[in-house]
Amino acid sequence: RIDGARLWDSLMEMAKVGPGLRGGNNRQTLTDADREGRDLFKRWCEEAGMSVGVDSMGNMFARLEGAEPDLDPVMMGSHLDTQPTGGKYDGVLGVLAGLEVVRSIRDQGITPRRPIVVVNWTNEEGTRFAPAMLSSGVFAGVHTQDWAYAREDADGKRFGDELARIGYVGDEPVGGRKMHAMFELHIEQGPILEAEGRDIGVVTHGQGLSWTEVTVTGKESHTGSTPMPMRRNAGLGMARILEKVDEIAWSHKPHAVGAAGHIEVFPNSRNVIPGKAVFTVDFRSPELSVIEDMEARLRSEGTRIAEEMELEIAFEKVGGFDPVPFDEGCVNAVRRAAEKLGYSHREIISGAGHDACWIARVAPTAMIMCPCVDGLSHNEDEEISREWAAAGCDVLLHAVLETAEI
Amino acid sequence: RIDGARLWDSLMEMAKVGPGLRGGNNRQTLTDADREGRDLFKRWCEEAGMSVGVDSMGNMFARLEGAEPDLDPVMMGSHLDTQPTGGKYDGVLGVLAGLEVVRSIRDQGITPRRPIVVVNWTNEEGTRFAPAMLSSGVFAGVHTQDWAYAREDADGKRFGDELARIGYVGDEPVGGRKMHAMFELHIEQGPILEAEGRDIGVVTHGQGLSWTEVTVTGKESHTGSTPMPMRRNAGLGMARILEKVDEIAWSHKPHAVGAAGHIEVFPNSRNVIPGKAVFTVDFRSPELSVIEDMEARLRSEGTRIAEEMELEIAFEKVGGFDPVPFDEGCVNAVRRAAEKLGYSHREIISGAGHDACWIARVAPTAMIMCPCVDGLSHNEDEEISREWAAAGCDVLLHAVLETAEI
Ligand SMILES: NC(=O)NCCC(=O)O
Ligand SMILES: NC(=O)NCCC(=O)O
Repeated sequence: RIDGARLWDSLMEMAKVGPGLRGGNNRQTLTDADREGRDLFKRWCEEAGMSVGVDSMGNMFARLEGAEPDLDPVMMGSHLDTQPTGGKYDGVLGVLAGLEVVRSIRDQGITPRRPIVVVNWTNEEGTRFAPAMLSSGVFAGVHTQDWAYAREDADGKRFGDELARIGYVGDEPVGGRKMHAMFELHIEQGPILEAEGRDIGVVTHGQGLSWTEVTVTGKESHTGSTPMPMRRNAGLGMARILEKVDEIAWSHKPHAVGAAGHIEVFPNSRNVIPGKAVFTVDFRSPELSVIEDMEARLRSEGTRIAEEMELEIAFEKVGGFDPVPFDEGCVNAVRRAAEKLGYSHREIISGAGHDACWIARVAPTAMIMCPCVDGLSHNEDEEISREWAAAGCDVLLHAVLETAEI
Repeated sequence: RIDGARLWDSLMEMAKVGPGLRGGNNRQTLTDADREGRDLFKRWCEEAGMSVGVDSMGNMFARLEGAEPDLDPVMMGSHLDTQPTGGKYDGVLGVLAGLEVVRSIRDQGITPRRPIVVVNWTNEEGTRFAPAMLSSGVFAGVHTQDWAYAREDADGKRFGDELARIGYVGDEPVGGRKMHAMFELHIEQGPILEAEGRDIGVVTHGQGLSWTEVTVTGKESHTGSTPMPMRRNAGLGMARILEKVDEIAWSHKPHAVGAAGHIEVFPNSRNVIPGKAVFTVDFRSPELSVIEDMEARLRSEGTRIAEEMELEIAFEKVGGFDPVPFDEGCVNAVRRAAEKLGYSHREIISGAGHDACWIARVAPTAMIMCPCVDGLSHNEDEEISREWAAAGCDVLLHAVLETAEI
């Protein structure tokens, strides 16, 4: 078993970096706080006897040598970046649990045949730079590095420049690291495990996602002196489309969700009818056909609404991935670990996207989930118990040890 | 008659200060560009033989001495501040036409009995600091100066601090300036005069306005892993209320308008269901009872929608004024001037709020309107013709000369 107290201490220590306003974290990717978090993680890894390499996307790989260094390593990890008003566990747990696994292995003097690598993937959240899971995506060959470097945040700052600014453009080529398998421990971010009182979710699939950025263009004009029939109100067009997004997602109940988290109007002045509205629609489902249907309906219904209102509309797909099945062998290793340790468990589909979803395309991969209070995530109030964290980390330890051929 | 070419040159010269992105202006109140525009106006006024005083709200008063300096002066003016994506004429025309009137009077060697004062009112637009017409409001005793100083922009900067920063806290007490009458020339910002081919709008009334800032509170949570029934989506609640705002305004057709120009969601991240939405609803009508009805329905319908969706909602009135009738004597002076000069004219109600609407509470006041292309305003493409500007300025000259007792 791992040391639950030590894991918790590390979580609380990391949470001091980039504190939020209400007890959570704002450690968005490639900010100074992200750099500070990375530096701390690096120090901890070196203290735990690992050597740390960084690739040109800023992905960090901390390696514990195996008895047979030439064998491909077993990886575990997640991400240290957070939402702007994020929690202390989303991503962080998976990275620091990896560190705790290594610390425990060394405490017990075990040397598995295969090397073990703890990884911190850059920009998983996708808030500052869309899309999410950007750097695991480049690692898996889904995006090119040039394209990733050119992503811009809301202030027009580029990913590549910001990565250089915080000093984390590493010298390894992205995707160069071989791996035998990867495991990612993550909080569920949904309500199922807690509601059913299970310790562990054995993740069999990840649901797919589609992000469409919608731009509605009308005409800026005076809110007081423009007669109602002459208005071309892009904000009102957006409101009608947001209602449709909700309707479309419910129509596939319970196999789909949909909402817009990102919403902006221009020029955003109290007495100017919005001439432009930009928002990103997030649709998800475990079924590809459902995602495709929702995307198509957003485009057709959005176009119809815009035409009725004499607005222009444009759609750009800014992120997406297909539903993904995880590797049977790895999933079984997770299930066996939970069983061996006596933790209650159930199969589950991940509602969120994770780095593991991209890595599954290039290596055998699986995920372990632990419950979180009220299913709440992407919220500073995100909470888990020490016991849940320790159980997840225990299962990670055993799944990794089995796979690394102890 | 005034010098139309000189007026136009001054308009174009002022438009170089705080240029917009597409040919208009971004000279928002209390920015560096606003200071630059003020400095230029001050220089021009001094060159035209006027002495310039500034009050503690930054309102600027340029005075041309009358034959009987002890008589209360006749004022004319408007505002030099613009929308973030504003035009070159909204406000500016009324100030620079005042300057042109003085220049013409001096050219012709006329000295009216009463002094003449050209005024630039601070923060008419209300974009950066709500409400609109802030400083004419303090002048008219509608707001206190302390309250005005405490207004904050989106970055939390306070009006009082920003006024000091640009060096325009004058030494005159606000409201100290006496006046015999005030005239404001302004572009219509609506389509009526152009559609009917009239040169001049004789403004008999200003319609009333109500600004309500609505805050909808839900719960931030993950867009992927939060099941549809568990969502408390503040952005969706806002969308439903925006639809209602439109419906409420149409229900009073043609005597009301309504829209929201200011819209924000928090934390504004693509994969976070908005936990909070803040937006400002702008309702207007020439009839007070209609405004009151719309406001009441916004509150009741908004509350109902929020309750249905398990959201919280709060309403704050952040701006408003009652419909205002202008002074009969001043209105007649405007009508007589248009007739004498042979300009086609019609009576009109102002759809926008203007500094004249507040000043009408403390002194005889009237407005003159000239057409603008397509009724477009609060848009960088706002346009007027030289002839329209000159006609409006001519009418201003004659109404002012008559009132100043030439
Ligand atoms: N786990 C997580 O919140 N990832 C961010 C990507 C997503 O939106 O699902
Ligand atoms: N004239 C003008 O646009 N004033 C701004 C105040 C308003 O919104 O009516």
